[in-house]
Amino acid sequence: MDQKAVNVIKNLTLDVINNSGNGSIGISFGAAPIMYALFAKNLNVNPSILDWINRDRFVMSPGHGSALLYSTMFLSGYPFMIEDLKNYRKLNSKTPGNPDISTPGIEVTTGPLGQGFATSVGLALGEKILEEKYNAKLKNGKPDKKIGKLFDYNIYVLVSDGDLETGISYEAASFAGTHKLGNLIVLYDSNNISIDGNINKTFSENVLARFSSMGWDTQIIKNGSSVSEIDKAIKKAKNVKDKPSIIQIKTIIGAGSLKQGTNTIHDELMTKEDIEQFKEKIGAGSIPFTILKEPASYMRNLVVDRGNKIYPIWEQRFEEYKKILSQGQINEINNLPYNKLSIDLTSMEIPIDYENKELMRESNHSIMNILGANIYNFIGGSCDVANITRTYIDDGKDLSPTNYTGKNISFGVRCEFMGACLNGLALTGFRPFGSTYLAFSDYLKTSIRMSSIMNLPVTYIFTNDSITEGSNGATYQPVEQLAMLRSTPNLYVFRPADKKELIGCWNYIINSKVPSVISLPKTEVKAEKGTNILNVSKGAYIAGKEKGKADAIIIATGSEVQLAKSIQAMLLKDNIDVRVISMPCMELFNEQNSSYKNELLNLNVPVFVIEYGSSFGFEKYVSSSDYLFNINNYGISASKDEILKYFKLDTESIINKIKSLLK
Amino acid sequence: MDQKAVNVIKNLTLDVINNSGNGSIGISFGAAPIMYALFAKNLNVNPSILDWINRDRFVMSPGHGSALLYSTMFLSGYPFMIEDLKNYRKLNSKTPGNPDISTPGIEVTTGPLGQGFATSVGLALGEKILEEKYNAKLKNGKPDKKIGKLFDYNIYVLVSDGDLETGISYEAASFAGTHKLGNLIVLYDSNNISIDGNINKTFSENVLARFSSMGWDTQIIKNGSSVSEIDKAIKKAKNVKDKPSIIQIKTIIGAGSLKQGTNTIHDELMTKEDIEQFKEKIGAGSIPFTILKEPASYMRNLVVDRGNKIYPIWEQRFEEYKKILSQGQINEINNLPYNKLSIDLTSMEIPIDYENKELMRESNHSIMNILGANIYNFIGGSCDVANITRTYIDDGKDLSPTNYTGKNISFGVRCEFMGACLNGLALTGFRPFGSTYLAFSDYLKTSIRMSSIMNLPVTYIFTNDSITEGSNGATYQPVEQLAMLRSTPNLYVFRPADKKELIGCWNYIINSKVPSVISLPKTEVKAEKGTNILNVSKGAYIAGKEKGKADAIIIATGSEVQLAKSIQAMLLKDNIDVRVISMPCMELFNEQNSSYKNELLNLNVPVFVIEYGSSFGFEKYVSSSDYLFNINNYGISASKDEILKYFKLDTESIINKIKSLLK
Repeated sequence: MDQKAVNVIKNLTLDVINNSGNGSIGISFGAAPIMYALFAKNLNVNPSILDWINRDRFVMSPGHGSALLYSTMFLSGYPFMIEDLKNYRKLNSKTPGNPDISTPGIEVTTGPLGQGFATSVGLALGEKILEEKYNAKLKNGKPDKKIGKLFDYNIYVLVSDGDLETGISYEAASFAGTHKLGNLIVLYDSNNISIDGNINKTFSENVLARFSSMGWDTQIIKNGSSVSEIDKAIKKAKNVKDKPSIIQIKTIIGAGSLKQGTNTIHDELMTKEDIEQFKEKIGAGSIPFTILKEPASYMRNLVVDRGNKIYPIWEQRFEEYKKILSQGQINEINNLPYNKLSIDLTSMEIPIDYENKELMRESNHSIMNILGANIYNFIGGSCDVANITRTYIDDGKDLSPTNYTGKNISFGVRCEFMGACLNGLALTGFRPFGSTYLAFSDYLKTSIRMSSIMNLPVTYIFTNDSITEGSNGATYQPVEQLAMLRSTPNLYVFRPADKKELIGCWNYIINSKVPSVISLPKTEVKAEKGTNILNVSKGAYIAGKEKGKADAIIIATGSEVQLAKSIQAMLLKDNIDVRVISMPCMELFNEQNSSYKNELLNLNVPVFVIEYGSSFGFEKYVSSSDYLFNINNYGISASKDEILKYFKLDTESIINKIKSLLK
Repeated sequence: MDQKAVNVIKNLTLDVINNSGNGSIGISFGAAPIMYALFAKNLNVNPSILDWINRDRFVMSPGHGSALLYSTMFLSGYPFMIEDLKNYRKLNSKTPGNPDISTPGIEVTTGPLGQGFATSVGLALGEKILEEKYNAKLKNGKPDKKIGKLFDYNIYVLVSDGDLETGISYEAASFAGTHKLGNLIVLYDSNNISIDGNINKTFSENVLARFSSMGWDTQIIKNGSSVSEIDKAIKKAKNVKDKPSIIQIKTIIGAGSLKQGTNTIHDELMTKEDIEQFKEKIGAGSIPFTILKEPASYMRNLVVDRGNKIYPIWEQRFEEYKKILSQGQINEINNLPYNKLSIDLTSMEIPIDYENKELMRESNHSIMNILGANIYNFIGGSCDVANITRTYIDDGKDLSPTNYTGKNISFGVRCEFMGACLNGLALTGFRPFGSTYLAFSDYLKTSIRMSSIMNLPVTYIFTNDSITEGSNGATYQPVEQLAMLRSTPNLYVFRPADKKELIGCWNYIINSKVPSVISLPKTEVKAEKGTNILNVSKGAYIAGKEKGKADAIIIATGSEVQLAKSIQAMLLKDNIDVRVISMPCMELFNEQNSSYKNELLNLNVPVFVIEYGSSFGFEKYVSSSDYLFNINNYGISASKDEILKYFKLDTESIINKIKSLLK
């Protein structure tokens, strides 16, 4: 009956793809036995209670396997209608071309190879943290077997050859091995074929030896059509508690098609003849979307019955836990996956020093530590530059395989993975943050995009945010990165002028739960009299009002606001009256109504912009590019002051140019 | 004497860092014996002939080891003055904070960890190609030992723990193993310490087992201060011809400092007391920049004498080769590292079809094949989507370990590495190209930035360049990527309207040798009457003139130009006269003089923009964001037509909006 059920999956997936005219038969036919063995025999879910917090998670890393996933879920009793399958890849359907978390039951939006796998490592880390935070323990620290575990779910992820070629998959695997994520089970659909053909010509490594070198448990299944072998291997992997597991399953791409084993079946549709022979071989009728009842209900019953058995046991257990957990803990658990707590930073007593300059990274460190003390699920780390970015929760301890409740994660020099891991943590229910230098945000772009597409409350903190980074030179000095981030949809980029604005930024971020970036300078900044915590939410505001009638407006961001204010003071001596606008968040300002925008900017006087980054995207505020004090070249190795002089962005050069332009 | 010379390197590097007030003592003291063993005993260079094409290449992947590199080069007889060392990290010095190819003798600009290593793999592949193209062979295909090898140089690269944590290093290593790059020798400075402390907490893998699984030869040296052991291992690695080699050298970070073995020595300066004890211990005087003569000249002589011995032999050999090589081959070799050949695509007979639509990817395929036939060093590939991007040189064969002269490289799903490899190939003397989907250009951002910083003639071809990509949905549909690329300094982004403009793009790129991007749609396009090959070099031009007096201007790019032209025709029926500007390259248009810009755009009529990408950076051309037909949200899974309607970017919606705005 298992084999028949696998054929039902294949046949339905074929109909789905054929009906849509688009989709990958290759992975669908090759990996159907894997999906069946997982869903029918192992995955602990309750398809009618999709938000059960202790459900196993499944992630389809090669997003092009979406049709296979939808068919499998449909046949497992997930809330899909046959109509949904017919709408595969159609507008506003539950079945888009790549899996998307907007579809109930889909755990992670996937598509770009490697991202799904890397995010799964974040999910696995998240589960480990929940385990350690909430599972009952005896006094000796061992699990309390009498009451059982509140959290003990596994993360299953299907990966393709292509996934494992990506750098991010390596970063993720190395981190997972170091952190002994035994709850992670990778099902490797190993068919040796990619879009461009046989992968031996470009991917000759011994994959299992590679994973083994990184602390993983490995198994190989030579006959990828054997459901029982796959099932046995999964069960064995579940019992490996101190290591993540990978099961290499040798499959044949498009198994069952006349073109099986070739790259043509990766993306091409099956011919009519091919479809006929396949349907005949498996004894399916020729009418699309006809499902053989017996094997289909066999499969569905396996999934649903297991769910109906395990869920009430867990529910009962949760009732028992409620007697031993604190109300606060119960609230935290009830709030999963998304923290609905809010916090009013503006009402808190956070010391502001108007006399002395302070490193913005230190200001941020102190605010983040207040957040860390007040927000139970605020956790994060850095890709090996926490000592410089200073995003360390002092009371939070280090997260490690012996202490998963540590709030500080050492990601290693694995920027790209860091972003994906933060996404996985956010999907689990954390408010994660990650930090590195702004120049290296390039490495995170793919993961940041995934945060934004999934709308996850991840906060990226990028320091050393301009050419004033100093003598490390061009490769460490960001120029175009702020433009890159600001142009990314559904991402809010904050560049606060001082500690006050930084409080405003965090207050906005924590309460609105948007994916966001905080950009901080390497340099010191003094709190400005004119800046304002609350106005940050408007994106821009007057931080230095003109004395009488303004002759010009200067828009500045971040550490350049203090420069603009000093220029304002100096120009006033020459009877040039200037308004200074601080713009901590361009995106929020763009969202304001036009009367507010006009109030700020529409004085019929020249507008200047000062930001030590690319002018790209700032032209809209000025009448000519002459009025932009930006940098559109790469930086240079020198001291901060030398650099600014070299690029004519020092105070004197700017003042002289403004004067000459106002003449 | 070896140990004394190592101490001279350390002492000089200490003075360099101390004098500058900035630099990493950690790597400098830890890896000095490695640098000495390599430069003094192995590196085949002639410091007075730095552009010798058969020199060994050395790459300092952890760019923060720059002071160590400069001191070593100085002591090896490279053209550095002591003044250069004193100017470490100063403006316009030969000794910037991270190594930069503008300094003679520096092979690769490094800084972001992993990039240097990945670029070295490109250098190694480049050498292999030169070997196979030019080295004399007997009739049976074996090397002609009598005349010897014209090219047989090695690529040495020093890597840190941090380098090997990065995903790009894994991608590069896997590719190098598959391609049997025996000329690549990696010296792994394994000190277990990174900026944030002991790396065991985040990097517990067995690195050598990992490399071994990827087809590398591995060695370990437990005593990293032993010059003779390092020397022996390097010599052994040189003899491994069919595998890349990695030598793990266990060093002590900051060895010799009181703080050795700790992360505080990674970036912090040595205290006065520490400096004193060190200088005393090694018998150096206390005056900075005093160099012990005997060990210094011992080292220098080793390097220089070896160079003076091997270079004339090679020179003589090259003379012999000139007798057997064709004049064309000799010219090619004399042109190394940079191809100075030019080609006039505009004068070539390239068929243009005005009647039928053609996939732009196919148009590009045909042009690239003309380039491939005419430019001997035009090579490249794709990260596993060549079948879709169609950047295949049909006559070029596949590059493989058994045929390094193949012109088509399969990079696997290793986008980030692809960029770094292309950089390495460009540094060797090739005109490389690489392709993938535009949405995945995110993965290449770091490498693209390095192409631009080094100003290498790399061409990136990104297809499926808008939301019209179709039903794969948001993750495959680029939105902000064009803005990201256009904001990158020193990178030219071309989005041609049709095959004619595409010829113009390639003609510009090939002859100006800028790092560049070509962005192509998934869709079909017909050659437009109004487009022009030569005008591409102006960045924008009138592709559809108004009939009489223009009522409005539409700027369009890429596949949206044909849309703009059809809108023009339809509006004319309603007596609305519109000028259509095609803008294949925003950067080139921005470089034009203002009279040309005004001629095109300054008619005192409304300007509209149509590009199916982010509006970020386009606002400068319009009076209000209402006039922008762009997309600032993520895409959606649906058919092309559904998507355009959904985002109100279909022909009808655009026409209606233009009409209402013109009222």
